[in-house]
Amino acid sequence: MTGDRQDPRLARFSLNQRSVPGWDVPGVVAACAAAGVPAVGLWREPVAEHGLAATAALVAGHGLRVSSLCRGGFLTAADEAGRRAALDDNRRAIEEAATLGAACLVLVVGGLPAGSRDLVGARERVRDLVAELAPEAGASGVRLAIEALHPMFAADRAVVSTLDQALRLAAEHPPAQVGVVIDAYHQWWEPDLAAVLARAAGRIAVYQVADWVPLGPDALLSRGVMGEGCIDLAGMTRAVTATGYAGDVEAEIFSARLWAAPPREAFDAVLRGYLEHVAPHAAPVGSRA
Amino acid sequence: MTGDRQDPRLARFSLNQRSVPGWDVPGVVAACAAAGVPAVGLWREPVAEHGLAATAALVAGHGLRVSSLCRGGFLTAADEAGRRAALDDNRRAIEEAATLGAACLVLVVGGLPAGSRDLVGARERVRDLVAELAPEAGASGVRLAIEALHPMFAADRAVVSTLDQALRLAAEHPPAQVGVVIDAYHQWWEPDLAAVLARAAGRIAVYQVADWVPLGPDALLSRGVMGEGCIDLAGMTRAVTATGYAGDVEAEIFSARLWAAPPREAFDAVLRGYLEHVAPHAAPVGSRA
Repeated sequence: MTGDRQDPRLARFSLNQRSVPGWDVPGVVAACAAAGVPAVGLWREPVAEHGLAATAALVAGHGLRVSSLCRGGFLTAADEAGRRAALDDNRRAIEEAATLGAACLVLVVGGLPAGSRDLVGARERVRDLVAELAPEAGASGVRLAIEALHPMFAADRAVVSTLDQALRLAAEHPPAQVGVVIDAYHQWWEPDLAAVLARAAGRIAVYQVADWVPLGPDALLSRGVMGEGCIDLAGMTRAVTATGYAGDVEAEIFSARLWAAPPREAFDAVLRGYLEHVAPHAAPVGSRA
Repeated sequence: MTGDRQDPRLARFSLNQRSVPGWDVPGVVAACAAAGVPAVGLWREPVAEHGLAATAALVAGHGLRVSSLCRGGFLTAADEAGRRAALDDNRRAIEEAATLGAACLVLVVGGLPAGSRDLVGARERVRDLVAELAPEAGASGVRLAIEALHPMFAADRAVVSTLDQALRLAAEHPPAQVGVVIDAYHQWWEPDLAAVLARAAGRIAVYQVADWVPLGPDALLSRGVMGEGCIDLAGMTRAVTATGYAGDVEAEIFSARLWAAPPREAFDAVLRGYLEHVAPHAAPVGSRA
């Protein structure tokens, strides 16, 4: 299945390239362009593999938006060497995001350092390092996007666990410097989601979708394609759109099952899930220019 | 390793029997009595297997407290038949808890009905059915204990996902009728845990401990023994004690790894974990009488 280049239902759709890891950057770009997908979410490792400048030229040449670059973050090191290394790496990521013209640089803030039980301290270090990076990102024209990850990743990936927590971190900085990721997979369970989403107005850097299905043997790779699971994507998409967010809706599906399929099949499944379960609830908009 | 019958460090310790599922009720009771463990957390299925009256007599004969009975709940059915079945089952559980003299009946409130995406509706049904059951529990001298489960279980086990949410549900009822479970494993990641714990004063029905270790192939059976993981059990135990809670501290460790060990080894490991990582932070108290 391929979409139509002028299909207005795809006007806000972005394919995160990690949904189809079997394709390299040229593969993803070619598939999106052919299917009328107007935006891609890129990851630093495959971008580096293809070359940063070459990737920037490729996406621009196909007229694609870069809805996000994944990922900066990992800001929780407790020692000075780790702190400096994290800052250096995030500075490189900011420059890469600027070169690609990405709408935001996603920050996965990092888990607890090995052996640590100091969650409060780790969260304070995230706050401190975001404060260091935010003005630098702003000066480069890059918006940092703090991503709250599902609490099952609090120990090893992100000590920011709720949207409220991400919003409070972002609120310390101008919206153009720091926003948040809304991710249906990470946030669907939150008790006061509607109220917190309303508070996110003006802070949403990117909206990511996937579905919750029973956890498989690897919790990290257990996401479902939109429609396969129990997330109220209709309601969540309407709530995000109601904040005034008119940017890209990015499908990011870490899934051992999806990844085992041929890339073309995976791509078609993701596109179909978006068209059936998300697009009807995301008012189409024009380009973000 | 066995404790000493007079060891004051064990004064608040309770062994949840699901930490050592290789033992039946008599096995758990005998081991606890011999080791100077003053309380047990029981489950309805093994209690039924041994016989309700026989179990009540056995624990009383050994002078053991029953810190909790697991579990009632599963209140999210969307149809009338499911609703009635849930109420009936919970009424039976209340009577069982009364017969055992359990300090509380733990409510695991249930996940989404099959095929449902209506999380808000499921949460409303929990609220409604707790309101039906609370006065009946009170009349039987049983305290309901709402347990917030880790959000990774929101879809299939408990739509109550945070301590704040559990406290708001409980607050609609007298404290003697409805309290909450504090469970280190389910709540350690919460962004405002210290503040929420302080609000739990007077509502804590039981405090359960385990540790967070990397998720294994079965997320349900991935808990660690206290000290093996990254939870700040010292700080959490002090915070719970600071609320005035002087009741039992129950080790409940669902763990494929622990369960694979011989029961005696598992029991000793749990006891050792409690003595080293929890007991020093739980001021010893006398009996709850």
